[in-house]
Amino acid sequence: MLTIGIDVGGTKVLGVAVDSADPSTVRAERRVPTPEGGAGLVGAVADLVAALAELVVDAGPPAAIGVGVPGLVDRSGTLHVGPHLRHITDVPLAALLADEIGLPAVVDNDANCHAVAEQRGGAAEGAAEALVVTFGTGIGAGIITGGTLLHGANGFAGEPGHMIVDPNGPPCPCGKRGCWERFASGTGLGRLARDAAHGGRLDAAVALAGGDPDAVRGEHVTAAAGLGDAAALGLVDELARWIALGLANLANILDPGVIVIGGGLVEAADLLLPPVRDHFGDLVMAGDRRPPLPIVPARLGEHAGAIGAAVLAAEPDQWMLR
Amino acid sequence: MLTIGIDVGGTKVLGVAVDSADPSTVRAERRVPTPEGGAGLVGAVADLVAALAELVVDAGPPAAIGVGVPGLVDRSGTLHVGPHLRHITDVPLAALLADEIGLPAVVDNDANCHAVAEQRGGAAEGAAEALVVTFGTGIGAGIITGGTLLHGANGFAGEPGHMIVDPNGPPCPCGKRGCWERFASGTGLGRLARDAAHGGRLDAAVALAGGDPDAVRGEHVTAAAGLGDAAALGLVDELARWIALGLANLANILDPGVIVIGGGLVEAADLLLPPVRDHFGDLVMAGDRRPPLPIVPARLGEHAGAIGAAVLAAEPDQWMLR
Repeated sequence: MLTIGIDVGGTKVLGVAVDSADPSTVRAERRVPTPEGGAGLVGAVADLVAALAELVVDAGPPAAIGVGVPGLVDRSGTLHVGPHLRHITDVPLAALLADEIGLPAVVDNDANCHAVAEQRGGAAEGAAEALVVTFGTGIGAGIITGGTLLHGANGFAGEPGHMIVDPNGPPCPCGKRGCWERFASGTGLGRLARDAAHGGRLDAAVALAGGDPDAVRGEHVTAAAGLGDAAALGLVDELARWIALGLANLANILDPGVIVIGGGLVEAADLLLPPVRDHFGDLVMAGDRRPPLPIVPARLGEHAGAIGAAVLAAEPDQWMLR
Repeated sequence: MLTIGIDVGGTKVLGVAVDSADPSTVRAERRVPTPEGGAGLVGAVADLVAALAELVVDAGPPAAIGVGVPGLVDRSGTLHVGPHLRHITDVPLAALLADEIGLPAVVDNDANCHAVAEQRGGAAEGAAEALVVTFGTGIGAGIITGGTLLHGANGFAGEPGHMIVDPNGPPCPCGKRGCWERFASGTGLGRLARDAAHGGRLDAAVALAGGDPDAVRGEHVTAAAGLGDAAALGLVDELARWIALGLANLANILDPGVIVIGGGLVEAADLLLPPVRDHFGDLVMAGDRRPPLPIVPARLGEHAGAIGAAVLAAEPDQWMLR
């Protein structure tokens, strides 16, 4: 069965066409810039679906579409608020898309889609209990329990980025202080890095940023750390500890059988994951009494969200029941 | 069907006999002091079961027993570690009890049992998505999703007490710093209170404690607050904010349809829950975009754990499948 999966990001919308029997293999893909407003988004998705269907016309018409969006999506497929989508709030996306395109449409949170893709054919393949956390500008998560997604009462489950881990920490755009994603994200690393750079403690990364302490971003730090710079490695360790702290909190609550790390930070997985694993063992409850918990990088890369959305579309009874 | 439910606490073991058709009605109950060691516990439970069966002999012999214990219990019913149980680690309780008593035996975490009782006939009655958090010496939790317990990969899910909410906070006996239960528990309130008392800011509560700042405990603070003492009310508000912070973190992750508060702190529910609800609305992600989330006191009181254990014993396929 041919299904279309769409991953809506803050800057671009990625669509893929996959066969539901082998969803990790992308048959066709296409990208467009993210439009403003709900109507614009519906139109862009409809155009993507039509274009993708044409690219794989030999596979027959698509049977369903799935869409992942960053934000709080309820069980009816209405996007309530998406912090990185302009002028898109309280939009009944699933209903509008089904009307516009004439196909069954499922809409879910983008991190939930990531999780489904990794569980179906990635780093958490077949796991009944898995946690997939994406670290990028912010933090997203998809929780798999009993072999299906944990959606919660409204569909809003899996938002650990605004878990408060330091009530006296830096302010978050959400209005609170010390949210996990202030520390454990590319943005958080950049903030740590600029503080250190202004203190004159991060010369190698500053050099990679062209000599301007204010231009230092996370990738300059990981690059300098990859070259063996001690100051940059120290910051990477600090980031790793913050990542591990939140993962330990989540593991205390959810007891997953595997934790999959996705998102932009995964590019630095070789550097980051070893210290994350070390700190995690210290920070999780009764770390010496638990079976080892694998913390592994995502396998499906930038297509994961769209692939997972396509899986949701093909198997709504499997994934959307709770 | 008659089932026996046992709630193992740090100081006493409570057993109840209930009819599975109406488990919230206790037919008989009995208490014994908590013995030391795994063999002692098995013997004490066996004696309780025999004594309870005799008290309700007209109802026929019990069909199964359920036991709730404070600590990490795996899916086979082995207690790995119970911080408040002396000399009891890595004990295969379910297997030992089934052998000793000759009845099917289910063993689970005590907070999971609380949650099941409240979902079956208490404050979360019939809820498919519910979070039950018990605040006493420490914090326990039972997570209900899809109408069943979330046990996690090993059975260790639902331990938010050691969620780190301030990495620079006070040390916890677990070896880490700033665990939620350092702040949001009777113990945490006592610590806040003694700090304030030594600073001369808590005269009414100190008077209730006999004039000794070091003797001030949580109940002196709630008593003084109940009398309208401003300093004590300020501490109660501080406690309420810490409780709300952890509940908000949990709600971001789990999106429950109802949060039930149990344990010793529930005795101060009239005083505590109004400010907990206020702070929760400020601290949960997108508080203004969510349907209101009821935060309510537990209804089943001190019998909840034992009742829930009896429900687990009567319906293992319902509750122990994940």
